[in-house]
Amino acid sequence: MTILHRTTRRIEFCDTDMAGIVHFANFFRFMESAEVEFLRSRGLSVKMEWEDEKIGFPRVSANCDYVRPAYFEDLLDVTVSLEKIGEKSVTYGFEFVRTGELLARGKVTSVCCRVNAEHRLESIPIPRGFRERIESAV
Amino acid sequence: MTILHRTTRRIEFCDTDMAGIVHFANFFRFMESAEVEFLRSRGLSVKMEWEDEKIGFPRVSANCDYVRPAYFEDLLDVTVSLEKIGEKSVTYGFEFVRTGELLARGKVTSVCCRVNAEHRLESIPIPRGFRERIESAV
Amino acid sequence: MTILHRTTRRIEFCDTDMAGIVHFANFFRFMESAEVEFLRSRGLSVKMEWEDEKIGFPRVSANCDYVRPAYFEDLLDVTVSLEKIGEKSVTYGFEFVRTGELLARGKVTSVCCRVNAEHRLESIPIPRGFRERIESAV
Amino acid sequence: MTILHRTTRRIEFCDTDMAGIVHFANFFRFMESAEVEFLRSRGLSVKMEWEDEKIGFPRVSANCDYVRPAYFEDLLDVTVSLEKIGEKSVTYGFEFVRTGELLARGKVTSVCCRVNAEHRLESIPIPRGFRERIESAV
Repeated sequence: MTILHRTTRRIEFCDTDMAGIVHFANFFRFMESAEVEFLRSRGLSVKMEWEDEKIGFPRVSANCDYVRPAYFEDLLDVTVSLEKIGEKSVTYGFEFVRTGELLARGKVTSVCCRVNAEHRLESIPIPRGFRERIESAV
Repeated sequence: MTILHRTTRRIEFCDTDMAGIVHFANFFRFMESAEVEFLRSRGLSVKMEWEDEKIGFPRVSANCDYVRPAYFEDLLDVTVSLEKIGEKSVTYGFEFVRTGELLARGKVTSVCCRVNAEHRLESIPIPRGFRERIESAV
Repeated sequence: MTILHRTTRRIEFCDTDMAGIVHFANFFRFMESAEVEFLRSRGLSVKMEWEDEKIGFPRVSANCDYVRPAYFEDLLDVTVSLEKIGEKSVTYGFEFVRTGELLARGKVTSVCCRVNAEHRLESIPIPRGFRERIESAV
Repeated sequence: MTILHRTTRRIEFCDTDMAGIVHFANFFRFMESAEVEFLRSRGLSVKMEWEDEKIGFPRVSANCDYVRPAYFEDLLDVTVSLEKIGEKSVTYGFEFVRTGELLARGKVTSVCCRVNAEHRLESIPIPRGFRERIESAV
């Protein structure tokens, strides 16, 4: 596991549910946001023009394990790792830590797609320059 | 105030926050969903092709007054009313009631727009046939 | 895999993102909502009083595989299955289908907890009567 | 209008909808988050223990006017103003600006409540020390 990026995230009031903790589905938003922040730091995005093509990274799988609850106003340390980069897909790993305690860890796999002439998504190899910018963060 | 549509909505777990009640921002999602359901019942939508144009209804203002809290698993009665329909804009009113008790009421105003050749939104008069289908629900 | 419950879900405008499809994190909300609807049909809930104890089912893991995108106004068929019920935990499986085509499938595992005297969650065996009501749906 | 606090907010992918812009309901989340950040900077919160009482600030009304759309990855300047502070309620105003252009402005009014012995919300005067900390930010 190779760490690509470190960031923080403050838990908002609307992230919580009536159990008084962060609703589990929100961690998937937090993962995506950290991924996007990493990509932005490399001049990339999850949806962008790249060499005259519109490319995007629809998700093909996502999972999360919840170890301890997160609470309103918690400040989480978030790490983004490169789990695997294939020809057409990329898997990022994420960890959420509060003052040294692991709260949750997850993974998201996305496939590189271009929007074709019929406005449909079509999977393509990750463009070479795009891949190089991700890998150069290792 | 002229009622256009009546529907119901069941409060979901993730609609609540750590105060144990529905988070206030969610009522705006509920309003939109009721508006869309009304439009669908008339063969319309908030984003659709209409006479070879792509039209949409971006919101220009929204408000809500909260009278009593709503709770997990509550079944709300929702009414959609026509507050005002102008040349280019439409204002819907909404009421949320639980077994006869008013919980919240709000309004949303949207402007009819078409997506122009540069992919930008441009306000246009509400197409006559579209307007007629809304008004015929009164 | 044993089906416990079948329901439907209409995709709302706010479920979509700028890629024009349902945002991947929302499927976790949809899974929970289907689970809650199943439990409600058995007189149960994810957070309730049970024999003078406050019990809840915090999630310990969740995953989803995305096969095809879902779009605004799609009406999805949702099935809830019992993947596994252990002493303290339960795993539900979910499938989302649009007119016969599988769009996504996922799983959520929860642990039965009671709120103890210090307002903290403490894992406990699933109460016998609670378990029997789930299993009787098979 | 007296500015209490200035912050920024980066638009996330999941804040957008299929129209390619930030979904209107999300601005209410953004307002609350800015309010909470302001309160935190004063050692306060929207839900906290204060002189041995549990107090909270449920919303009684909220509105927003949308002037221009916000897009994915936009960095917004957000200002929190004190519109009015009464005996039991407080109204904050908010403006969202992107590189000098106003995108949206809104208001949220909350009532100070304590959680009483029956776990119900009961409106109370804003505690004097709490009010002083808000007003000292002016």
